[in-house]
Amino acid sequence: MDSKTKRFILSEQEIPTHWYNIQAEMKNKPLPPLHPGTKQPLKPEDLFPIFAEELSRQELNQTDAWIEIPEEVRNLYKNYRSTPLVRAYALEKALGTPAHIYFKNESVSPIGSHKINSAIPQAYYCKKEGITNITTETGAGQWGAALSYAAKAFGLDLAVYMVKISYEQKPYRRSIMQTFGAQVTPSPSMSTKAGKKILTENPNYQGSLGTAISEALELAMNTPNCKYTLGSVLSHVSLHQTVIGLEAEKQMEMAGEYPDIVIGCFGGGSNFSGISFPFMRHNIKGDKKTRFIAAEPASCPKLTRGVFQYDFGDEAGYTPLLPMFTLGHNFAPANIHAGGLRYHGAGVIVSQLLKDGLMEAVDIPQLESFDAGMLFAQTEGIVPAPESNHAIAAAINEAKKCKETGEEKVILFNLSGHGLIDMTAYEQYIAGDLINYALTDEDIAKNTSELEKII
Amino acid sequence: MDSKTKRFILSEQEIPTHWYNIQAEMKNKPLPPLHPGTKQPLKPEDLFPIFAEELSRQELNQTDAWIEIPEEVRNLYKNYRSTPLVRAYALEKALGTPAHIYFKNESVSPIGSHKINSAIPQAYYCKKEGITNITTETGAGQWGAALSYAAKAFGLDLAVYMVKISYEQKPYRRSIMQTFGAQVTPSPSMSTKAGKKILTENPNYQGSLGTAISEALELAMNTPNCKYTLGSVLSHVSLHQTVIGLEAEKQMEMAGEYPDIVIGCFGGGSNFSGISFPFMRHNIKGDKKTRFIAAEPASCPKLTRGVFQYDFGDEAGYTPLLPMFTLGHNFAPANIHAGGLRYHGAGVIVSQLLKDGLMEAVDIPQLESFDAGMLFAQTEGIVPAPESNHAIAAAINEAKKCKETGEEKVILFNLSGHGLIDMTAYEQYIAGDLINYALTDEDIAKNTSELEKII
Repeated sequence: MDSKTKRFILSEQEIPTHWYNIQAEMKNKPLPPLHPGTKQPLKPEDLFPIFAEELSRQELNQTDAWIEIPEEVRNLYKNYRSTPLVRAYALEKALGTPAHIYFKNESVSPIGSHKINSAIPQAYYCKKEGITNITTETGAGQWGAALSYAAKAFGLDLAVYMVKISYEQKPYRRSIMQTFGAQVTPSPSMSTKAGKKILTENPNYQGSLGTAISEALELAMNTPNCKYTLGSVLSHVSLHQTVIGLEAEKQMEMAGEYPDIVIGCFGGGSNFSGISFPFMRHNIKGDKKTRFIAAEPASCPKLTRGVFQYDFGDEAGYTPLLPMFTLGHNFAPANIHAGGLRYHGAGVIVSQLLKDGLMEAVDIPQLESFDAGMLFAQTEGIVPAPESNHAIAAAINEAKKCKETGEEKVILFNLSGHGLIDMTAYEQYIAGDLINYALTDEDIAKNTSELEKII
Repeated sequence: MDSKTKRFILSEQEIPTHWYNIQAEMKNKPLPPLHPGTKQPLKPEDLFPIFAEELSRQELNQTDAWIEIPEEVRNLYKNYRSTPLVRAYALEKALGTPAHIYFKNESVSPIGSHKINSAIPQAYYCKKEGITNITTETGAGQWGAALSYAAKAFGLDLAVYMVKISYEQKPYRRSIMQTFGAQVTPSPSMSTKAGKKILTENPNYQGSLGTAISEALELAMNTPNCKYTLGSVLSHVSLHQTVIGLEAEKQMEMAGEYPDIVIGCFGGGSNFSGISFPFMRHNIKGDKKTRFIAAEPASCPKLTRGVFQYDFGDEAGYTPLLPMFTLGHNFAPANIHAGGLRYHGAGVIVSQLLKDGLMEAVDIPQLESFDAGMLFAQTEGIVPAPESNHAIAAAINEAKKCKETGEEKVILFNLSGHGLIDMTAYEQYIAGDLINYALTDEDIAKNTSELEKII
């Protein structure tokens, strides 16, 4: 047993006052999003019909490296921040690795994941601009639950389209949203043109984030005084999530260490960005040589097997064209339990960073992710979200390499959420009913080959 | 919006090094547990066949006010302690009360409740004494989940009897226990004499904590190198839970306040004891006049409507006779969602304190408890456990009184756990399907009148 400090927590005064905007410091800026009709680069004003104005400006801001966190947002951050940075001594011991493994524990937020970090500012800016109604989509329900809380906190009405497979697999998340007063509809639904079209073609379609985004966007565009919000992918969401890494940087300092490797699971990119970008700025400056690893599911491998191309962010093609690693916006991901990672594309910043070799990506099969999650639960006592299991698996793989080489590397990963509402998945794992989903090169080429060649 | 400090957190160095044993300082000591056959007061040795020896000694220790927390236990406490003390500004605002409301947030523990505070030392002492197998019962599953984690941490095999109604209502908690490697059986079961007897008489019996205790005890008594463990009621469990109140005392000091009222929900008494006893010691010394309020469900009102008498702790009558406020060990509580409060009796210390007027009790109908839980969720952002809702309801009632009188009282309650795995209950509440269960005086007299008059 070890009696050294395990958990590092910041005082309320040390909670970051600014988010870090990596766009301002990237040598190669992300390519601009394009208007799908004119193919012209978007200006913030082009986004005003969809998003709050301040969020639109943040989305395309490539000049200000630091953006102040409004007082009202910080005040709600204080309800659960700082989250702890934890040294995973028990996991290290179980692996027999000389590596030092740390995790940032975002699972202790009221809703159980990091999603609340962006939900609060998004609801705040909408409220501040006089908006009364917001819409969104949600995969596993983590984002929807977080936004439901934030909408309630700022007195906004919220309509959520929840990916149908998750709506059925995760009824508790649906109820959490309803507890906070949100209206929840399974997607695809018959309430939008986008949903009707998909259901007509494929009545049994289990939904995807891409489809749910189309539905939420359509509702926002057709409702007065209503804006759309998104829980990942976009640059302003990554911006808000940097509060994770900025805290972790101070906490690693308390621990007297600096990470050699930083790892996040990867759906649209926001939690990975959040833990990574504040450390990556030191790589950009040339001060550090940290490795950054995005861990995506093998069944939805846009970073490791997708193409870098302009593509839509949603199934129906309502969004601007985004320069991203993508499997094609018509890609229908397998029904893995990590619902939050079932998305065809990656955010524009992360896509550029991957292209430029500033980060890496690995893909993790479903069973390997749960092997890792079980070991983590049994050693550290926290049942992780299926999404987070991908980050844990990647961290374990790196720690095992250290065991072989004898290197005492410092590995930091983001525990993006707990899995207490995903126990069906663990039940299936324990029963031996969980499977891997393999994708052939043909499966992947089917959707990516249809993309218009712009780059 | 308020930018004052909201959350108070202790450093690892400030985590208590000793538990507080109120028995040593009570003017009127609890009456002794009696051997059911001889009616003689129990000595620690009499408990050795059932419990670990050190736990047996702690159970009857009326001399040492402070008992050192073993290093190995503190080391695991550090995984999640200190838990935050939080000023509930948003709840205060919603109520329009001048009262200052604080809550101790035990919901951030890895398993989501305070139960882990006693699970860790119980597993530790068993391991230390060479025990290989342990058994227990669980109501809502909070205790079972916590003990499953602790058993895994110390390498013990665990068998859990889970109250049948909870086994069915809360499958996720069952899966959590299985994730940690525990064997879970719904109670009543056909695997014990006690279970068989009940099922033969009433095949549809939905179970109770009293029955599950009988089954777990029977298994422990019939298995080599196996001990029984309990998640509440007993004095050593209350002892371990004082870590809550001892932390809260330091944290209230950080906030510059001292509670006028301390509130905990009440099942067997351990979370109430945990938050209360460290503050109550100042009342005993005569330094303070804090009020202590136990909030029990109206459908299981042992403190407010039960009798003070010697009774068994379990349905089958395997336990020693305990001097307690009780509804009779055959009392079958209604199927409320607060499964952890469905117990017929109160711990011996708390029973004596209530008898001596050192604390009060209130009973809360199920609907009122959920009204309170919904308001708390929508203001503070945390969905509370159905059990904790009773404490919140009592706190809200006191805060409303302050609104009438204009008094700025300081109210502290224990948020014993989160309700993220109890969303079925909230779903029913939102749908309007939740009901209150009324008990007539005849219902209560039916079981209590059968008790042997010893006191």
